[in-house]
Order: sequence, then C-alpha cells, then structure tokens
Amino acid sequence: MAEKEVKLFGMWASPFALRVEWALKLKGIEYEYVNEDIPFNKSEELLRLNPVTKKIPVLVHNGKPLAESLVILEYIDDTWTEGYSIMPEDPYDRAQARFWAKFADDKCVSATYAVFTSFGEAQQKLLQEARDAFQTLEQALSGKQFFGGDQIGYLDLAIGWFAFWMPIFEEIKNLSVVDNENAPLLKEWFARILDVDMIKTSLPPRDKICELSKQFLSGQIKR
Amino acid sequence: MAEKEVKLFGMWASPFALRVEWALKLKGIEYEYVNEDIPFNKSEELLRLNPVTKKIPVLVHNGKPLAESLVILEYIDDTWTEGYSIMPEDPYDRAQARFWAKFADDKCVSATYAVFTSFGEAQQKLLQEARDAFQTLEQALSGKQFFGGDQIGYLDLAIGWFAFWMPIFEEIKNLSVVDNENAPLLKEWFARILDVDMIKTSLPPRDKICELSKQFLSGQIKR
Repeated sequence: MAEKEVKLFGMWASPFALRVEWALKLKGIEYEYVNEDIPFNKSEELLRLNPVTKKIPVLVHNGKPLAESLVILEYIDDTWTEGYSIMPEDPYDRAQARFWAKFADDKCVSATYAVFTSFGEAQQKLLQEARDAFQTLEQALSGKQFFGGDQIGYLDLAIGWFAFWMPIFEEIKNLSVVDNENAPLLKEWFARILDVDMIKTSLPPRDKICELSKQFLSGQIKR
Repeated sequence: MAEKEVKLFGMWASPFALRVEWALKLKGIEYEYVNEDIPFNKSEELLRLNPVTKKIPVLVHNGKPLAESLVILEYIDDTWTEGYSIMPEDPYDRAQARFWAKFADDKCVSATYAVFTSFGEAQQKLLQEARDAFQTLEQALSGKQFFGGDQIGYLDLAIGWFAFWMPIFEEIKNLSVVDNENAPLLKEWFARILDVDMIKTSLPPRDKICELSKQFLSGQIKR
C-alpha cells in the first residue's frame, strides 16, 4: 500500500495534536497518525522532523514536515482550499481570530496550568487570574454560536480542547474556573462544541484523560 | 483635514511597533503615528483600543483596532493586497515563516533578555543558550539573501530589529551573541538588512536607544 500523503505525529492525549486532527477531519483529508511516546521516548523520526522544538504535533505533507499546531491549522486551510473553510474570510475577522488564539495560548493555558497545580492562598489568587482570563476570552464569542460564527472555525479548533479538559481538571481539583456565573457564554459553548459530531467522535477516552490529568496535575509527569 | 484612515499607536523605541511601521512603509500606506508614553502613562485611548493586553502596537484601520505586531503584519498584507508582498506566496513557505517568527518571539527574545540582565556564572550559561537560539534561527536563512528570499518579507520584518538592537546590547554588556563564529549568516544578514533604504531611514536614533537600553538592562525600567 502506498504511503499516505499526510502523516500526523501526535500523542493520543495531546490537545495540541487534537487541534490538527480536527482540522484534517473537517477538511476530509486522509492521514496516518503516528502516536509518539511523549514525554519519555520521542522517536528518532520526530527529532529528525522537528529538531528545533522537538515537540508534537508535526504534520508531514508529501515528505515536508511542519510544526506548531496553530501554524499547521493555517497551513491546512491554505493548502486544501476546497470544502470547509477554517479561517474567517474577512481579513479583520481573520486577524482577530489569530489575536485570540495567541491570547488563549499565552494567557489561558498558563493560567489553567498555574491554578490547577497550586495550593492554598496562592491558588486562590491564581483562581481569580484564571477566571479573569477566560472571562476575557469569552468576549470573542459575543453574539455568536461558535467563535467562527454559525459553524466552528480556527479559534474553535484552537481552544475547543478546553471544553473537554477543563471540567476534568475542575472535577479533580474541586475548583470552578469556567461556570455559569463567571463565563456563561463560554460554558454554553463548551456544551455546544462537544455536541458537534466531528468533535464528539474524535475525543480521547474520558477515563484515561482523567487518570493522566491526575498524574499531570500532581506533578508526576511534566508539561 | 480629514483623519487618516490608518493610525498606529506605538512607542518610538519599541521594536514591536517598528515591525508594523516597516510593513506600512513597504506597502506605501500613509499613517498617523501616535507615540505612547510607555511604560509610565498609557493613554486612555490605548486602553480603550486594546483593553485585553493593554500593549502597543495597536493599528487602527477605519476605526477598527487590532493588536499584536505579528497579527498586524499579516493583516496589512491581507488587506492591502496590491504592491509589495510581505508573506511568502507558497503555503509551506508561509507556514515556515510563521513557525520561525514564533520561535524568534518565544526563544530568541527571552534568551536575549535573560543573557543581558544576568551576571557571573548564570550569565555564562545563558550566553550559551542565547547563542544556540540564534544559531538555530540562522537555519531559516540558509541559501538566501533575506529570510524572505531576494527581498525582505514577513520574517525579516519580524526579527529585523535584532540587527539594530543586538550590537547595542553586546556593546553595553561586552558580550558577543551573534558573531562571525557563532552565526555568520545571521551576522551578514544584520549588515544586509540595515543597508536596505527603507530600514536604514526608519531606525530610531542610535544614541537614544543606547541610553534607554542601559536603563533597561540595568533594571531601571521594566519590560
């Protein structure tokens, strides 16, 4: 059998690899998934394909490798121009989507990590910061079903993993970051995006993510 | 006189605002420059235009504000499609340029800050890390005059400021990060980009940047 044109080097529990899987599925692109043993045993091939950051995901298209999940999302939309559009059409909307994806990766990801791995008084302060970050992010959803409008797009793919992971973290640590009081639009969007067929059918098993999250949040495995 | 269609909120010594100025100049777009008193007295208007990160640069186009310098560069190229092309034409080249701009902002900027604000043994270790980061960045220049090819493009605009600032930092602290031994291609590119007319004629005064850099690197003013 001929090698598939598209290969994705990921790890089954990585939200950043999942972003790319979602984009490939939306576009209807066939791909081969290579599951890396992260963080313990990165393959020689991964290190050869992404010697700069040595991280997954890496997309290999016709032998050419590309890293950084948000960069890959844009590449997929730029390359397979037929069918589903991931990026907004309007240049200003496109720019805003990029701005918020960066905000989510810079602020919301680190605020989430910080609050769920801290304790006591420090945690209370970090909880407020995390709640503020998601309340800010919610603004990008104002008046819309999805961040992409009537259907999911780039920003939904970029931050959709929070809808699945956040309630798991909240349950493990008995904390509430995104709720009806703090970020009601985002909370509704959590339910809405998890109900999209393509998303629903491509999530990793919840029990396994719970187990891994417990190890991760207790510091047994590192980011 | 009618208000200009494009306004840039920047600060005369900000490399991130300079990126945007360069892009506007390459495109031949007329703009009004609003110099913010950063970090001491941000204007009410800046806080209104960019309440999320409260940072410059902010581009205002027909009344609509946009923040994050790299996002703005793409917006400019997406909006004024005539004339000079900033982004590479090929989707893979475009993705690679985005990858390297992120690498430069994530790794090279923080490595530069770290090495020039540290001392003693810690500084020696950080010096090696900074040299490694720029040596890695240099790979993106291999076989080319500019990162954009035969003429400057997105990645040149994103990292061009290092060509002007790095030798100033190196002189103040008597350290060598980018030199003929460590990153010869990048060192040559420093000279080449500083010789581009548009770049050469739009740099801030070297003596003032020296003075400000001394204050910055000694911790008198914060990032």
